[in-house]
Amino acid sequence: MDHNGLYRAISEKRSFLCIGLDSELEKLPPSLHKARNPVLEFNKRIIDSTHKYAAAYKANTAFYESMGSKGWLTLESTLGYIRTNYPGIMVIADAKRGDIGNTSKMYARAFFETMDFDAVTVAPYMGEDSVAPFLEYPGKWVILLALTSNRGADDFQYHNEDGLMLYERVLTLSRKWGTFNNLMYVVGATRADMLRDIRKIVPEHFLLVPGVGAQGGSLGDVVRYGITGKCGLLVNSSRGIIFADSSENFDRIAGEKAAEIQKEMESHLAAHKII
Amino acid sequence: MDHNGLYRAISEKRSFLCIGLDSELEKLPPSLHKARNPVLEFNKRIIDSTHKYAAAYKANTAFYESMGSKGWLTLESTLGYIRTNYPGIMVIADAKRGDIGNTSKMYARAFFETMDFDAVTVAPYMGEDSVAPFLEYPGKWVILLALTSNRGADDFQYHNEDGLMLYERVLTLSRKWGTFNNLMYVVGATRADMLRDIRKIVPEHFLLVPGVGAQGGSLGDVVRYGITGKCGLLVNSSRGIIFADSSENFDRIAGEKAAEIQKEMESHLAAHKII
Repeated sequence: MDHNGLYRAISEKRSFLCIGLDSELEKLPPSLHKARNPVLEFNKRIIDSTHKYAAAYKANTAFYESMGSKGWLTLESTLGYIRTNYPGIMVIADAKRGDIGNTSKMYARAFFETMDFDAVTVAPYMGEDSVAPFLEYPGKWVILLALTSNRGADDFQYHNEDGLMLYERVLTLSRKWGTFNNLMYVVGATRADMLRDIRKIVPEHFLLVPGVGAQGGSLGDVVRYGITGKCGLLVNSSRGIIFADSSENFDRIAGEKAAEIQKEMESHLAAHKII
Repeated sequence: MDHNGLYRAISEKRSFLCIGLDSELEKLPPSLHKARNPVLEFNKRIIDSTHKYAAAYKANTAFYESMGSKGWLTLESTLGYIRTNYPGIMVIADAKRGDIGNTSKMYARAFFETMDFDAVTVAPYMGEDSVAPFLEYPGKWVILLALTSNRGADDFQYHNEDGLMLYERVLTLSRKWGTFNNLMYVVGATRADMLRDIRKIVPEHFLLVPGVGAQGGSLGDVVRYGITGKCGLLVNSSRGIIFADSSENFDRIAGEKAAEIQKEMESHLAAHKII
């Protein structure tokens, strides 16, 4: 899936919603505790009830690794479930990996060959050769951390050399490592107005915006400052959708929450003449 | 294991060698190809033949994840093998994780509870709240990336604000997040003379120094600029030991290589009156 392919998927779904499958065992509805694999059962029901409204799913590997090799197996099964039942939807491994070249190559193999994710999030600290191996896979994406939405983002991401903050340097340097067909960026939504300046550096790249919904952040602001002629946005919501309800009807409620966001996104897409 | 515990382990082994179990399937000796689990068999034999010379083992998760859930199981089995047969040896997950607080908590659980590693490497880009959850486990260690030994280190780690480079800012800020009992740093050995300046910022913390051996880097220089009164160094070698030979005697040769390095380390420890 390239830039145009992602744009087409968004146009068809009338949505640029990414749903985060942060399926923490302790937070699952009690009705699932008896299932053989509660997390997998939860994911399947969430996916069945939300897929119409989502352009992408994002699985944060931390929640799966916390369950050891069984969790890793659940991650593989979840990916397989989406691939089999809902082909065409983008699936992102939110793994924030990155290591020296030879080792990043192994991570790229893990997420793009052993598993068949479309995209993986990568941390930039170790520089170009830690990112390059992921960019060698045709049709696959690197989603590089630029500006994150957590408090700790202040510690280093704003480190300023001659007016260029670290996250701006990440954008400026890395855009030459790939193209807008295989590289996007994580940009935290709690600072939506900064999207304006970010768009000066990467006018066309897709941005994955976390933190709309449960973590706050306004969709309107993100669209105002971040949207491009081909949308250029994937906006994530995790807990606000998947844990909206803990009754036996959790999946129906999750579907309703996702549909609400999709409606709002559809109106933004229409207002910007993207659909 | 705290700072003193690690110092004692080093004194007893007369070695500050960390052996990297970067056990890439394609690089294993052909004689192991018929084994039921070649990587696990390889690791066991390497560990049996080198444990006398090693203060620590380090498993880079990338090599295990590249084999999917089966690889993750192999990682768990390798850790279990060390714990059962060679208790007291430090085992490091070289995972380079880091995410927003709630998510890092899941990674900490993965490596410190679900698995029982002593230490995990963490990437600093997302700041304090991405590191803090790992520091809440008594007796466990965060090994934070400061200066890495790859070419890409130049891209961001030297970003300079008012004379303070990013990796120096990482050291300066993060030393307040933990103590020298639960926090150490990755410092790349290809720039051994920089250890002198690093020691001005973190005079007592342990440093994990990669890249001595196959990747070049002189042990003498690392010791000269980096050693403390309680050693304060773990120096890693991976391929230079584990892939020193590909015959059926690979384990014996690996043991000899490890013994060579241990001897050199012993003489440094003695010269500095640490043993």
